[in-house]
Amino acid sequence: MGDEVILLDYWPSMFGMRTRIALEEKNVKFDYKEQDLWNKSSILLEMNPVHKKIPVLIHNGKPICESLIQIEYIDEVWPGKNPFLPSDPYQRAQAKFWGDFIDNKVYGPTRLIWGAKGEEQEAGKKEFIEMLRTLEAELGDKVYFGGETFGYVDIALIGFYSWFEAYEKFRNFSVEEECPKLIAWGKRCVKRESVVKSLPDSEKITKFLPQLREKIGIE
Amino acid sequence: MGDEVILLDYWPSMFGMRTRIALEEKNVKFDYKEQDLWNKSSILLEMNPVHKKIPVLIHNGKPICESLIQIEYIDEVWPGKNPFLPSDPYQRAQAKFWGDFIDNKVYGPTRLIWGAKGEEQEAGKKEFIEMLRTLEAELGDKVYFGGETFGYVDIALIGFYSWFEAYEKFRNFSVEEECPKLIAWGKRCVKRESVVKSLPDSEKITKFLPQLREKIGIE
Repeated sequence: MGDEVILLDYWPSMFGMRTRIALEEKNVKFDYKEQDLWNKSSILLEMNPVHKKIPVLIHNGKPICESLIQIEYIDEVWPGKNPFLPSDPYQRAQAKFWGDFIDNKVYGPTRLIWGAKGEEQEAGKKEFIEMLRTLEAELGDKVYFGGETFGYVDIALIGFYSWFEAYEKFRNFSVEEECPKLIAWGKRCVKRESVVKSLPDSEKITKFLPQLREKIGIE
Repeated sequence: MGDEVILLDYWPSMFGMRTRIALEEKNVKFDYKEQDLWNKSSILLEMNPVHKKIPVLIHNGKPICESLIQIEYIDEVWPGKNPFLPSDPYQRAQAKFWGDFIDNKVYGPTRLIWGAKGEEQEAGKKEFIEMLRTLEAELGDKVYFGGETFGYVDIALIGFYSWFEAYEKFRNFSVEEECPKLIAWGKRCVKRESVVKSLPDSEKITKFLPQLREKIGIE
C-alpha cells in the first residue's frame, strides 16, 4: 500500500516550510492543501482540534501536529540515507535544544518586529538580532548546524530566513551586517532543491507583510 | 567507567521534578545540587549559558538543558526495561505533542494564578481548568497517559500535580471537582517510588507560594 500524505499548510508559514522541506528531503510525495486561517476548514478543525493551527501532517489518515514533532516523525518513518537527527543521544539533545530555542526565542521577537509599535517594535528588533547572534555563535564555521549534513536545526531555522528581507525593509536594518555567517549559511541552504521548492520568494513575503498587518487589524 | 550524573535543580520546580523522576525510574544515581535562582552559581551559568535556568542535567561533564529534552535523553542513554516513549513513531509523536502542550498551555496559566492580580488571575484560573480538562479528555480511562505504562507524558505532567493544592488554596477552587479522573491519575502516580522520592509535599509548596510571590516582588 502506498502512503497517503497530506499537508495542511499556509504558504507564508515558516513552520509549514519546515515540514515541506523535511518531506522533500525524504522524497515523500504529498498532497499540499493550502488553508485559509481566517476561515478554518473542517478538515483543519478535525485534524488539529486542540490548537486549530497549521501545519498538520496527515499520514494515512492520522494527524501529526507541531512542526518540530513532524520533522522528527518524518525522520523516523522515512529514515533513508540522510537522517535529520544524529544518532548520538547527546548530539540529538543539542539539536533539539536549538529547535526549542528557535521556537521560544526567535519567533516571539519577529512578531514584535512586524506586529507591534514604537518601543516594543524596537525591543523586538534588538532581541531578534541578539537571538540570531546566539544562533550564529552556535553555527560557527560549520557548513550547516548539523555539521557537514543539512539537518534538524537547519530545517527548523531556514523558513525564518525567507522572512529576513521583509523584516529588514520594514524596520530598516540589515541582518547580514549583524550576522554575516548566518546569511552565508542561508545562501548555502537555499541552493538545496528541497529548500528551493519549499520557500516562497522573499519578495512575495515582503509584499505580503503589510497585508498581514491589515488582516490582523494592526493597520 | 561509572557515569557521573549531576542535576542542577531547585526543589519547587515542576520541570526539575521531571528529570528527578526520569533518573529515579531508570535507577540512575545522581548528585543533586540545589541552586539559588536569585544568586546563580558559576556552574549554572557555565552549564546553561543560553537560558541560565534549571534543571540542567550534567552527564560526564556535558550539559543537557530543557526538561523534556532531558527525559528523552535519559530514555535513550538508559533504555532499560521501561521506555518512557513508545517505539511506534505515531505514538511517539502523540506523546511529544502532549509534552509540548503542557509546557506551552498549562504552565502559563499557572503563573497567572499565583503571579497576577484581579481579572488576569481569574482568566489564568479559567484557562488552567480548561487545559486540565483537555488533558483529562486525553487521559480518558487509561491508567497512565502512556496506557498501562508510566511514561513521557506522565513524567511531564506529574510535577504540576504537587502544586495543585497551593493553587486551590490560593484561589479557592477544587481541581478534583473539575477533573476527577486527573486527580485519580495523580494519586496513582504518587504511589510510585520514583515520584514519591522526587515530589515535595504539597503542603511545603503551599507554604512556599507566598514566599515566592514576595521574592518576585508581587507582595
